[in-house]
Amino acid sequence: MTELPPLVNPPVRTLMGPGPSDIHPRVLAALARPTVGHLDPYYLQLMDGLQGMLRSVFHTRNRMTFAVSATGSAGMEAAVVNLVEPGDAMVVCVNGVFGERMADVAARAGAAVTRIDKPWGDVFEPDDLKPVLERTRPKVVGIVMAETSTGAWQPIEEIARLTRAHDGLLVVDTVTALGGIPVDVDGWGIDVAYAGSQKCLGCPPGLAPITFNERALQAVNARKKKVQSWYLDVSLLASYWGQERVYHHTGPINMSYALHESLRIVHEEGLDACHARHMRHHRALKAGLAAIGIGYAAREGHQLPMLNAVRVPDGVDDARVRRGLLERFGIEIGGGLGAFKGKVWRVGLMGYTARAANVLLFLGALEQLLREQAYAFAPGSSIAAANDAYL
Amino acid sequence: MTELPPLVNPPVRTLMGPGPSDIHPRVLAALARPTVGHLDPYYLQLMDGLQGMLRSVFHTRNRMTFAVSATGSAGMEAAVVNLVEPGDAMVVCVNGVFGERMADVAARAGAAVTRIDKPWGDVFEPDDLKPVLERTRPKVVGIVMAETSTGAWQPIEEIARLTRAHDGLLVVDTVTALGGIPVDVDGWGIDVAYAGSQKCLGCPPGLAPITFNERALQAVNARKKKVQSWYLDVSLLASYWGQERVYHHTGPINMSYALHESLRIVHEEGLDACHARHMRHHRALKAGLAAIGIGYAAREGHQLPMLNAVRVPDGVDDARVRRGLLERFGIEIGGGLGAFKGKVWRVGLMGYTARAANVLLFLGALEQLLREQAYAFAPGSSIAAANDAYL
Repeated sequence: MTELPPLVNPPVRTLMGPGPSDIHPRVLAALARPTVGHLDPYYLQLMDGLQGMLRSVFHTRNRMTFAVSATGSAGMEAAVVNLVEPGDAMVVCVNGVFGERMADVAARAGAAVTRIDKPWGDVFEPDDLKPVLERTRPKVVGIVMAETSTGAWQPIEEIARLTRAHDGLLVVDTVTALGGIPVDVDGWGIDVAYAGSQKCLGCPPGLAPITFNERALQAVNARKKKVQSWYLDVSLLASYWGQERVYHHTGPINMSYALHESLRIVHEEGLDACHARHMRHHRALKAGLAAIGIGYAAREGHQLPMLNAVRVPDGVDDARVRRGLLERFGIEIGGGLGAFKGKVWRVGLMGYTARAANVLLFLGALEQLLREQAYAFAPGSSIAAANDAYL
Repeated sequence: MTELPPLVNPPVRTLMGPGPSDIHPRVLAALARPTVGHLDPYYLQLMDGLQGMLRSVFHTRNRMTFAVSATGSAGMEAAVVNLVEPGDAMVVCVNGVFGERMADVAARAGAAVTRIDKPWGDVFEPDDLKPVLERTRPKVVGIVMAETSTGAWQPIEEIARLTRAHDGLLVVDTVTALGGIPVDVDGWGIDVAYAGSQKCLGCPPGLAPITFNERALQAVNARKKKVQSWYLDVSLLASYWGQERVYHHTGPINMSYALHESLRIVHEEGLDACHARHMRHHRALKAGLAAIGIGYAAREGHQLPMLNAVRVPDGVDDARVRRGLLERFGIEIGGGLGAFKGKVWRVGLMGYTARAANVLLFLGALEQLLREQAYAFAPGSSIAAANDAYL
């Protein structure tokens, strides 16, 4: 090559977008520990520790609880392609980008997909699903618990009960949920749940925690055809993550160190305390935004604490505000996707990002940028309201 | 959880197995740099740099040269599932574990697979393929350039010419090859090649460099059905890695830093010098092993420099030697897979591992362990022979 690109030298950001979230220095340090082999006794022991902590965070005793060696979207694909054979009926609930994606993934796997659509920002009630489950008798039902494109918090428990009553297998996308709000895989009767490392767990992107219960594994065992993906085939992965430790693929060693450390941090804080922290900072942020007239895109009572999708005020230039936040304050937030493009900001308070310092920094910076656009509000009121919420 | 697993604290190993290889401290340092968002202007610029260096290492001008966000085996799956539609004919050359794997991946994608089998350790001649290509007229031909299970170095150029002459698309597994021996994607006419980050590039496992030429992309565009994998669909990935920068999945930011740094190190040394270094240390290792009566599993004249698959001498306990290397010297080597189980050691000299210090360390440690098993040889002769080779 004539000219090499510059050395890696990233700017320091405050990551308040839809993920990745800020990474705790301990997690970055773990990432840089010496690499060992994927069959090294040390690594096998580390995998055991990872599995134990993932079971705890998913609230499950499922044997097949592990991390897919790829990002959250591959977790979605792993969940779907293991359960679905060509021609199988699958119902997918769509109220945002990730439900849409799951429908696409399922169709590619050959499922006969029935979509249930609801407006973006809304959530599904059991009655929305009931007639469809009765009519289509799906093998699999897919739903997103924390829709990262809309900030909507989907209750799962009753839908899990309904799905079980119709003999379906329930797949739940907990990519943004896990670690930020309670996910009770065993208590609710979720059959497969998957997540991402880079949201409320506070690890860099690259791994997808996932759990399959025995019902789901029986469905995999009862397949007529092999799983279409060799890489994601849970029956092969079971031999690597299980007692046999049979080589499947080369595990992503250093990323596993990072996930291990981030899960340790979650557990040192305690899962309940971690959820409460996400809620506390969300309430402060929401109070601060309300004080300057900025409201949420998701239905009231169903707003996620870790992903605050809020409406861009009329007359305010979305891109200019986001650019100002990034360039002048080093703060990343997310823009709207799809139907919400240009209309919504997505403010993440996930994992290590969910701290009072970041709530106040964001509100202060936002006030500065809104004033430049002559948006009318009482200066300082967002900070005052957030601080009130912290009292 | 009642008891948390211990903090991440891996032992320091010398990684002389089939990969991961030793990681240069600069690469570990890059891995731990602050995480930015996957649409951050900095990250998009880093992706450009990555693509440029990957093109250089693959010897290609292919636009769609990037890294799959998963390990090398997912690179294999990406190559196959993009090109193959159900019913398409694919020929797979099988002379080891990874050819076997490719045949499995292709069958799962619905290909009508014709295998050409050769003994482990052997390589394919154009004449082995010719009648099969004439008979089956495959859409895709798959072959492994550096068979990590046998240490066999498969020449590609003539097979690429033959495949093109039969209108086939050639997929080449360069997982272990890339960075260690010359890979000339454009010069030879390879249509898709994929690799792994953790071999001769010297980056931790977790990414799969891959390149598709325009012929391959045209075949993807001409598909009747969508690619079965949403995660690996190169037409979607083209919008993220191309000019549009459309969000697809959350890129594995820190792993990309590491791959960037490892590619920079390769290019600072120079690709030709890097290949020559792998060859130099291989020759010394081979001379040292020959001096104590240890020979290679792969066909003479077709032995890979970076993956030395050598025969366990008669009467020597394979597992005891490998355990001794690991526990007493911190050296990891690989055992044999499949047909070679218990019969072959796989000694990697890949990337940063390919250094004279490691050759001498390994031979010295091996001599100590072999003497304990009363294996007869002239003590010190392996070191002397290796040092002769370095003169």
